[in-house]
Amino acid sequence: MSKALTISIDAMGGDRGVDIVVPGLEIVLTRRPGVNFLLYGHRDVVMAKLQDHPKVAAVTEFIHTEVAISMGLKPSQALRQGRRVSSMWCAIDAVKQGRADVVVSAGNTGALMAMAKVYLKTMAGIDRPAMAAIWPTIRSDSVVLDVGATVEAGVKQLVDFAVMGEAMARVVFGIDRPTVGLLNIGVEEMKGIDEVKAADQILRHSKLPIDYYGFVEGDDLGRGTVDVVVTNGFTGNVALKAAEGTAGQLSYYLRQAMARSLFARVGGFLAQGAFAMLKDKMDPRKANGGVFLGLNGIVVKSHGSTDPEGFANAVDLAIEMADADLVKKIAIDLAVLKNNGGGKYAVHKSGNGKVAAVS
Amino acid sequence: MSKALTISIDAMGGDRGVDIVVPGLEIVLTRRPGVNFLLYGHRDVVMAKLQDHPKVAAVTEFIHTEVAISMGLKPSQALRQGRRVSSMWCAIDAVKQGRADVVVSAGNTGALMAMAKVYLKTMAGIDRPAMAAIWPTIRSDSVVLDVGATVEAGVKQLVDFAVMGEAMARVVFGIDRPTVGLLNIGVEEMKGIDEVKAADQILRHSKLPIDYYGFVEGDDLGRGTVDVVVTNGFTGNVALKAAEGTAGQLSYYLRQAMARSLFARVGGFLAQGAFAMLKDKMDPRKANGGVFLGLNGIVVKSHGSTDPEGFANAVDLAIEMADADLVKKIAIDLAVLKNNGGGKYAVHKSGNGKVAAVS
Repeated sequence: MSKALTISIDAMGGDRGVDIVVPGLEIVLTRRPGVNFLLYGHRDVVMAKLQDHPKVAAVTEFIHTEVAISMGLKPSQALRQGRRVSSMWCAIDAVKQGRADVVVSAGNTGALMAMAKVYLKTMAGIDRPAMAAIWPTIRSDSVVLDVGATVEAGVKQLVDFAVMGEAMARVVFGIDRPTVGLLNIGVEEMKGIDEVKAADQILRHSKLPIDYYGFVEGDDLGRGTVDVVVTNGFTGNVALKAAEGTAGQLSYYLRQAMARSLFARVGGFLAQGAFAMLKDKMDPRKANGGVFLGLNGIVVKSHGSTDPEGFANAVDLAIEMADADLVKKIAIDLAVLKNNGGGKYAVHKSGNGKVAAVS
Repeated sequence: MSKALTISIDAMGGDRGVDIVVPGLEIVLTRRPGVNFLLYGHRDVVMAKLQDHPKVAAVTEFIHTEVAISMGLKPSQALRQGRRVSSMWCAIDAVKQGRADVVVSAGNTGALMAMAKVYLKTMAGIDRPAMAAIWPTIRSDSVVLDVGATVEAGVKQLVDFAVMGEAMARVVFGIDRPTVGLLNIGVEEMKGIDEVKAADQILRHSKLPIDYYGFVEGDDLGRGTVDVVVTNGFTGNVALKAAEGTAGQLSYYLRQAMARSLFARVGGFLAQGAFAMLKDKMDPRKANGGVFLGLNGIVVKSHGSTDPEGFANAVDLAIEMADADLVKKIAIDLAVLKNNGGGKYAVHKSGNGKVAAVS
């Protein structure tokens, strides 16, 4: 919190756009006074909102942009329509030009990823970015990556994700040596896909300064067995949504059960403090914010359907990472990876395309 | 229920072996009188147990086997040590020889899959088996496959899984036209892996008599959007365990919350009927039983850590499928698939190994 941070904000993203963004920024200011905002959006909607929130207006530079990227647009369409002229692109541009330390958008995920990739580009040594999510566990939170940026991750990507996720966990959780696990399945022998097995060998035998735990399984996610869980974007995205779906399903059962009888309703009334705690634990707004890692700049994606509190949490997360200069930390770690031979491993494939050896 | 069914049972599998198996069979008999059992295990433990359960003993042919496959054994070790002499192998053999209609084991999953594959072999037209799970949803149950047998499923496998899962859903849920969805991720453009996109094209355009819904995402699992969800074994296994983990996590929060204050405890007491209903909804024993599909015979895997009620549910599931002659139904469907050109599609890969076209 020592630096004066500038946060670039896409005011037009998300299901409710500026109506959650500006009130969200007001919440941020109560917790992190001293930050500044660059706010990108259409003057017709943003100006009025800023007038309602003078505290936000006082620390905000507003920049009018003509185009808003709609939630249903495909990334390729978004790039065609939104390059240079959209609030999303211009908000990213502020980071690119060094005018802002980090960018936050609640907009279209695919479009945001595509623009960030095209414009910020991947860091030296990284060829595929990852999207990291904060996963609430019974122990504390974990970082899970990738949850949808790189659907098919090869050996190198998985190792890179481990390095980047570990750096993020250090910053966000404030711990020195986060533990890192590789997501796998428990059916022996057939155990896992070749890429995962090869990445395990590298993480196990390299001299990387990472506290590598080994394989974890799907149920280790909620258990919080490790601080960082590494997987490919397809599996990570499915797991994240399966867990969200299960949480929704159980909330539904609970509501149904509590509405069932007078006893249950009275009981529910008496237990409402307990339910409030439960609701708080399960609040998806608390862990709001997917982080794109591996680019020359940090991009935070807020849930499109969140509320001001949720958006504020995404901005808080962005501030923490900008404050700690996460991109620089990752660059240093990648250099260590390279110097320790971790960046130089070769994956030998046999005739059928399977990973035969790692050296 | 018209046929006199014979169920082959591995008495030595699971964390508690015969102690859950025989009491489980007693529960089965209360619901399905008229079935017979072939029970494979070591005489030293099984005989005494059968004496305690004369109703089970009355309809059981007991066959002594020397070897029990332990839970920690690797599939390759299990095959070496257990071929011909283990309770697991002999229980499968009964199906192979036509002496039993279906086999149930609570034993080592990897070993069971390996033995079943090696010995029963895959059906004509199928080259990789799948493990199907019953997934409880807020609508009703769904069939999800594969949850761990075929970690990397190609286009053909995914289509085969759709056909087999649909047949299973018809039998187990007693519905005429179950809906079938393909698990994918929602980030546009990058949408999914090539195999999943190609399988979607085939299921969409083939003349298969399947009610194909299209893509579903991870949160559709708990929502019960479709009756059958198709995915590869790696992703399916991670999703299943992530959902189980989340359910465990929320139960933990609920217990914690209810123990928090006197009000909450009194409320919890009054609401205990509601909680019982909730517990019942979330009871993992109810959906116990993974089904290996695509082999010449049905193999049902019960959870190793279940209790007699859970084991009985796995046997019930086995009985339903044997009763409906699921293997024959699947064989007919595969013939339809082949005749409709569904079995003849070609997947064209471009130079980099990506799926370029399907015809």
